[in-house]
Amino acid sequence: MFDIDKDKVNDECGVFGIYSKHTGTAVAQQAYLALFALQHRGQESCGIAVCDDGLIRHHCDLGLVPDVFSRDTMESLGSGNISIGHVRYSTMGTNIRANAQPLVIRHIKGAMAIAHNGNLTNAVALRKEIELAGAIFHSSNDTEVISYIITKARLTASSIEEAVETAMGQMQGAYSLVIMSPTKLLAVRDPCGFRPLCMGELDGDIIFASESCALDSLGAKFVRDIEPGEIVVADKDGVRSITTHCKKRKSGLCLFEFIYIARPDSTIDGVSVHSARLRAGALLAKAYPIDADVVIGVPDSGIDAALGYSRQSGLPYGVGFIKNRYIGRTFIQPTQGERELSVRIKLNTIDTTIKGKRVVLIEDSVVRGTTTSWIVNLVRKAGAKEVHMLVASPPYLHPCYFGTDVDNRGTLIAHKMSVDEICRHINADSLHYLSLDDVEKIAEGSMREFCTGCFTGDYPLPVPAAGEKNRFEYRISDVDR
Amino acid sequence: MFDIDKDKVNDECGVFGIYSKHTGTAVAQQAYLALFALQHRGQESCGIAVCDDGLIRHHCDLGLVPDVFSRDTMESLGSGNISIGHVRYSTMGTNIRANAQPLVIRHIKGAMAIAHNGNLTNAVALRKEIELAGAIFHSSNDTEVISYIITKARLTASSIEEAVETAMGQMQGAYSLVIMSPTKLLAVRDPCGFRPLCMGELDGDIIFASESCALDSLGAKFVRDIEPGEIVVADKDGVRSITTHCKKRKSGLCLFEFIYIARPDSTIDGVSVHSARLRAGALLAKAYPIDADVVIGVPDSGIDAALGYSRQSGLPYGVGFIKNRYIGRTFIQPTQGERELSVRIKLNTIDTTIKGKRVVLIEDSVVRGTTTSWIVNLVRKAGAKEVHMLVASPPYLHPCYFGTDVDNRGTLIAHKMSVDEICRHINADSLHYLSLDDVEKIAEGSMREFCTGCFTGDYPLPVPAAGEKNRFEYRISDVDR
Amino acid sequence: MFDIDKDKVNDECGVFGIYSKHTGTAVAQQAYLALFALQHRGQESCGIAVCDDGLIRHHCDLGLVPDVFSRDTMESLGSGNISIGHVRYSTMGTNIRANAQPLVIRHIKGAMAIAHNGNLTNAVALRKEIELAGAIFHSSNDTEVISYIITKARLTASSIEEAVETAMGQMQGAYSLVIMSPTKLLAVRDPCGFRPLCMGELDGDIIFASESCALDSLGAKFVRDIEPGEIVVADKDGVRSITTHCKKRKSGLCLFEFIYIARPDSTIDGVSVHSARLRAGALLAKAYPIDADVVIGVPDSGIDAALGYSRQSGLPYGVGFIKNRYIGRTFIQPTQGERELSVRIKLNTIDTTIKGKRVVLIEDSVVRGTTTSWIVNLVRKAGAKEVHMLVASPPYLHPCYFGTDVDNRGTLIAHKMSVDEICRHINADSLHYLSLDDVEKIAEGSMREFCTGCFTGDYPLPVPAAGEKNRFEYRISDVDR
Amino acid sequence: MFDIDKDKVNDECGVFGIYSKHTGTAVAQQAYLALFALQHRGQESCGIAVCDDGLIRHHCDLGLVPDVFSRDTMESLGSGNISIGHVRYSTMGTNIRANAQPLVIRHIKGAMAIAHNGNLTNAVALRKEIELAGAIFHSSNDTEVISYIITKARLTASSIEEAVETAMGQMQGAYSLVIMSPTKLLAVRDPCGFRPLCMGELDGDIIFASESCALDSLGAKFVRDIEPGEIVVADKDGVRSITTHCKKRKSGLCLFEFIYIARPDSTIDGVSVHSARLRAGALLAKAYPIDADVVIGVPDSGIDAALGYSRQSGLPYGVGFIKNRYIGRTFIQPTQGERELSVRIKLNTIDTTIKGKRVVLIEDSVVRGTTTSWIVNLVRKAGAKEVHMLVASPPYLHPCYFGTDVDNRGTLIAHKMSVDEICRHINADSLHYLSLDDVEKIAEGSMREFCTGCFTGDYPLPVPAAGEKNRFEYRISDVDR
Repeated sequence: MFDIDKDKVNDECGVFGIYSKHTGTAVAQQAYLALFALQHRGQESCGIAVCDDGLIRHHCDLGLVPDVFSRDTMESLGSGNISIGHVRYSTMGTNIRANAQPLVIRHIKGAMAIAHNGNLTNAVALRKEIELAGAIFHSSNDTEVISYIITKARLTASSIEEAVETAMGQMQGAYSLVIMSPTKLLAVRDPCGFRPLCMGELDGDIIFASESCALDSLGAKFVRDIEPGEIVVADKDGVRSITTHCKKRKSGLCLFEFIYIARPDSTIDGVSVHSARLRAGALLAKAYPIDADVVIGVPDSGIDAALGYSRQSGLPYGVGFIKNRYIGRTFIQPTQGERELSVRIKLNTIDTTIKGKRVVLIEDSVVRGTTTSWIVNLVRKAGAKEVHMLVASPPYLHPCYFGTDVDNRGTLIAHKMSVDEICRHINADSLHYLSLDDVEKIAEGSMREFCTGCFTGDYPLPVPAAGEKNRFEYRISDVDR
Repeated sequence: MFDIDKDKVNDECGVFGIYSKHTGTAVAQQAYLALFALQHRGQESCGIAVCDDGLIRHHCDLGLVPDVFSRDTMESLGSGNISIGHVRYSTMGTNIRANAQPLVIRHIKGAMAIAHNGNLTNAVALRKEIELAGAIFHSSNDTEVISYIITKARLTASSIEEAVETAMGQMQGAYSLVIMSPTKLLAVRDPCGFRPLCMGELDGDIIFASESCALDSLGAKFVRDIEPGEIVVADKDGVRSITTHCKKRKSGLCLFEFIYIARPDSTIDGVSVHSARLRAGALLAKAYPIDADVVIGVPDSGIDAALGYSRQSGLPYGVGFIKNRYIGRTFIQPTQGERELSVRIKLNTIDTTIKGKRVVLIEDSVVRGTTTSWIVNLVRKAGAKEVHMLVASPPYLHPCYFGTDVDNRGTLIAHKMSVDEICRHINADSLHYLSLDDVEKIAEGSMREFCTGCFTGDYPLPVPAAGEKNRFEYRISDVDR
Repeated sequence: MFDIDKDKVNDECGVFGIYSKHTGTAVAQQAYLALFALQHRGQESCGIAVCDDGLIRHHCDLGLVPDVFSRDTMESLGSGNISIGHVRYSTMGTNIRANAQPLVIRHIKGAMAIAHNGNLTNAVALRKEIELAGAIFHSSNDTEVISYIITKARLTASSIEEAVETAMGQMQGAYSLVIMSPTKLLAVRDPCGFRPLCMGELDGDIIFASESCALDSLGAKFVRDIEPGEIVVADKDGVRSITTHCKKRKSGLCLFEFIYIARPDSTIDGVSVHSARLRAGALLAKAYPIDADVVIGVPDSGIDAALGYSRQSGLPYGVGFIKNRYIGRTFIQPTQGERELSVRIKLNTIDTTIKGKRVVLIEDSVVRGTTTSWIVNLVRKAGAKEVHMLVASPPYLHPCYFGTDVDNRGTLIAHKMSVDEICRHINADSLHYLSLDDVEKIAEGSMREFCTGCFTGDYPLPVPAAGEKNRFEYRISDVDR
Repeated sequence: MFDIDKDKVNDECGVFGIYSKHTGTAVAQQAYLALFALQHRGQESCGIAVCDDGLIRHHCDLGLVPDVFSRDTMESLGSGNISIGHVRYSTMGTNIRANAQPLVIRHIKGAMAIAHNGNLTNAVALRKEIELAGAIFHSSNDTEVISYIITKARLTASSIEEAVETAMGQMQGAYSLVIMSPTKLLAVRDPCGFRPLCMGELDGDIIFASESCALDSLGAKFVRDIEPGEIVVADKDGVRSITTHCKKRKSGLCLFEFIYIARPDSTIDGVSVHSARLRAGALLAKAYPIDADVVIGVPDSGIDAALGYSRQSGLPYGVGFIKNRYIGRTFIQPTQGERELSVRIKLNTIDTTIKGKRVVLIEDSVVRGTTTSWIVNLVRKAGAKEVHMLVASPPYLHPCYFGTDVDNRGTLIAHKMSVDEICRHINADSLHYLSLDDVEKIAEGSMREFCTGCFTGDYPLPVPAAGEKNRFEYRISDVDR
């Protein structure tokens, strides 16, 4: 299927957790509403686990939140005092139910539910080590590896949080975790803080979520971001922080959270996502003043950057596209070879904005470049005299090992072509990218440093060598006999 | 259920038809794609009928297009040479499958499928007359009445189009129809042209649709609008027009198509919907210059008007809200009394745009007024210093009898309160509506005159007297014994 | 799909109705339970209509009773004081939802719901006449014709029962009807009484059902059978009978109700179905004494006849087959050409019963003969030394026009081959059918005379001439232009 | 819910496996058909795993085979060269998807899928030991324990079969396993052979199944039963047997497989199930000659015993009950307190068989005694003069630890009342059970000895002490902090 959203950097997950001092609370319903607000972080599968006075119930499945959770399912989850939830995006081919989270497991000291956003860089090595000790795995995701590392540590630890503290010494990579034990809720962020994770509060209940928009959807108050390397524990004695792993490393917050992944109404580590996108547009305007008639953005993320460009440049801002509000699991596709139609089902032009104009067209990013030429083509068909393409991020040149789905350098258009070649390929009159210097300024005022590995190849942590597998392989035909 | 979209004028339907000279064409798939583009005109039920060399197959059900039409369902519809489709919105309480369209019926001269957008004003009288002759009805919608009128006329007519021509002499009100016989496809628009209907062409196939955006979604070329009173017939001999009922009346195109109902990328009777909304904003700016810091629109339709206001006034345009992209059939609602949350699930503020600012807030319309105060409240919570509410249409004072769901004067806030009272009620610093004079200018350049009945009570056609039933009643406890 | 149940005479429907003097009664639930007991009379679609103080709600769909009626659906039907229900079998190709019953319609004097078991022989003529008056049809079933005839009569009648009385003068053929008006429940049986219909009573509530087993499933008391030609009316004034059309004709109860269609625990017009099947077996034993070791029946109906044969002949009765209890909508079929497997999925042999034995194998009937040879083959594979096939009904030679699905003489094996040829074709050592004289004795003690048209070609009523259409055709490519 | 099938001994599972030498074989379809034949062994959940040249795909869910496996699901499983399948019954409360099988896991040497019928008696101890080594569990079933034991052994074993051989040294209890590695298919039966397991062959493909009826449904040839303690391996080199654990113990085949669990057309360890039931009836007749008019059996298993009684005693055999063929997931139940109706929905009497008669009524077993009195009541209501109840198995006095769901002595009626008390409780004129001596004769000719623990308390293996948990507890509120 040819999908215009496929040319994007997709985050693999969103996580949520709530701890209430009162049993019989509608914590599953809160998780539902929060996951609904985090749905943009993962549309493939979702799940909720509820702890009802020590007893854990859970339900996960493939599908969007409103489809997976029916009235009956919600009733069967019931009320409780703790709940965690998860939404998951996944790369093609591992779209199976076994990978849906939260993962609920039983170990010697009890049960545990875990929801994970990120990607371990040493998961393959860790898994091999664990398997050599006789362990078995049910899934291909590294959340199961994490649950093993914690469980092993738990054997000798005096508490779940101590086990997590120990486990963090072994895990490398990106992980924003929400963990539920029969009596506690934990939020954990890796020492680089690749993925966001924040804390909120609602009538005394403690809430953790990937993005602040989930807090807003519950009417909860934003309290603070979880620090890179921090463990926050919520239980009957209140909230406390374990900071053993904090500040050991330079932080490396993912810039793509601002560029594309996060919702514009979220604030991450001190910076409004919407403002960051406006700033990206303004920086483009300063760097590339263009003699044009209108500035239009490609929905959704390009729109904010277009507005930023317009404000800085004084060029009029226009609405050039309309996106179909009802996009979902439409299985029907125009016949092969008619890619333009495939784009048009989701995205149509507003011709009065474009006709006869010299257009500045702003995209948040160009990753694989599969749809850009068709979008330029739509704008030309709508009557644009010139199309100047501006990209609100630098050329995407290197794979990401920290929680997005861009794991193969070979598919990256900027790796295969020069900017001039891309410009000709997409049939634009000019093409410019935000510079590396500028992209680091978009999250101005953040309390963190950033990971720019995908632009520079320079990562905050060692990454697997080229050719080395960073994912578990299902195919095992060469093994067990 | 408290629903922010309930304070809107909802059109009752969207229609589509395609005639191909070749059998074995994927006409059902074309209908699917077109209905997907027309989904905003009706989310309650949908249906497709296919004519395969004279044999009619159809499938209708409650739900959105991608939910009603599975792979299996589409396979069972198969290919053919003619197809029509329908999406339907419906008022609460008549949400039953029997009302889904297209309506497929058998009469003495064969079969017929019919899809209808609009509302007859004399349906109750016509139905009574037909029933007195012994007819039976299966549904409560007036499409069945229309099919009867046409069938009666067909008894003595020499063709289906002649029957429709005769039937039009009896039907009063709003109707944009697409009708399929075993060999022909007809498009019919009432003499006032209340609802839009246009014609397109794709590789020789003839297409009719409620809005031009459906043509775009198929890659079809826009040919022209159907004239008020016109019948267009497509069959193996080509396309021909019957204009007997044209120009007998002043046209009365519904202004709410431009204000709220239609998709902004559609062009109706010569006017771009997006441009009309920009113009509404500009006219507001001329009429009500306000000393403020930012102009924001309430999604989706208020956004275009806000941009128009900004351009005219010079005040900066800002993005103040983010709407959840995954809104669907979420059954979960925050507990009663927490209406703010109910709004917030769908609509969240972007606080950096609003905080400390004097805000001009633009809504396309305020009909029942059920959510406006909560939206103003959200903006205040986000830190606005002042909130000036502008409405891009005049006060809504009278019921609509021509195809929308506003049929009860008692629920209209402008009927119950003065503008000052409303302003206080919604807690705005000021409140202004677009004037009646100005609203007639938003579709400047249109080839039609407009219906302004909902603002003035002055309708293009006689309407049922107050208290008179304009809908069929299901409750029949006082009758048959 | 090759289906062992396809070689049967299938009744087209089962009907049910309940009238309670009290509103707020769980009448829909009673209908559900009764339809579940009548499921054998129709597995394709089902439906329930409820009258709640004059307001009619209904739900019909394709599928078995437990699949069509979910908890949500039953809740939406709610309680009431009258309810009718229907299960429907249908011949291949008209398996569409529009044909599901009860049919709920609105006419000038109110609403009406109607459930029908049978087949009109003059439906095509009646429909044509009605259509010529401008009527339109939504379905291809003759229930809609019946509803029209009644509605026409209702225009001038003073009550619904008077309308039905008048309508009966026009309708020819088989019809057992249950009709619900906003205030009354009617049971109607055609003057020949082709299909069964009985009355029961439970705590003062009046119940009508196709078979007495439905009464048992509710714990209701059997009151009596509805007479051929009778109309029974239940309303707030009690129960009364209209007998205008009674005794005008010789009755013609369908013998296949006893042979195959009805449930063995039902009693029809004074005769136990189980006893009739035992008697058929005994009559076979008298007519065809065979030197054999064991008598086995083909499940389900052949089993009773086998027991009757055993008792009469003194030969041991054995269980030779086991039928899979979970047969349902299994879409998977063994690969083409492996018909034996297709039989074996549903029916397996118990080899210890058969091995080395001379077997008397009893089938209730052989209609199209599609599976008989495979069943004989199974018995041979299980080690039978000889297989003597006895059929508990006479050769099936003529189409049925009175409510079963055998409408094409060309498919009948006894029409195409002599008994000897059939015997060789199915590879049996001998083959005998119950004689015509004997089959009329199986329902000994009945208060009715029987229709033996399918055996003799001599029908109680005139039937359409050969080649004349007895069903409505969907294909109308030669008509409307 | 009051359910007449609840008063039964329910086996927990059925297993199936097929090994083909050819890739691209429709092995999943074969599994589907076989599971459909084994559906009586488990109706709660089912699953199929396919090995396609080393790559394992699988699908499991709650529901019956035809409901869990849609056309789409089967397509996604695809073809392959090995497949295993599982149907599962489960006791109330653990009806969750995580317990569905086959269990597919990944260990250090590759992947493995496992399907299990039985119950380990040392599962709790084994699990504790494994958990103490840091292992985590996803489910509460002992199949996961088995997979761990095998995986641990696999670390040092040179092949999967060697690992299984080692693991068998640690596992105690009942287990009939089918195990699939990327290249092999294994069938494993515990040293006592509590549960059946047999081997078949079809065109060179090797098949394993719980019962021979599954072989029949595929048209496969029965080869032999797997020996207690045997491991059979099928791979590219053919079939070989590992007998290390054979004959170390007295075998202990479960007698309830003959009494109730297995399908009558199956042959287990040399004995036809149908013949065993006939023999049980005959033994009852010898032990308890009764002066009566008719012998009837309670469907389904009581019917065979009734026939055996009739043959031995000379009393006429009658069909006294009809069971609704469409029983399924009917959620609707008669209102509380009307237990008779609850029985009657599924089971109705044929009164002509019973009326005025002295009835011998035969049940296969009476476990909890919840429905017996209602069945006697039905027979009395049908007009029986006397009701003599015979039970085709001895009083059920002790829990089963070897794979059925009878795990609580407190619910057993024979544990709570004397035979006389039960007789009065169920309102029978007399009540007799098959004697312990006789029940051991029903499977006469078997190559095994039997487990009679449920009648005698004398088990072939040590069982957990009274009060000791034999099942994993989900509730862990007293643990992890």
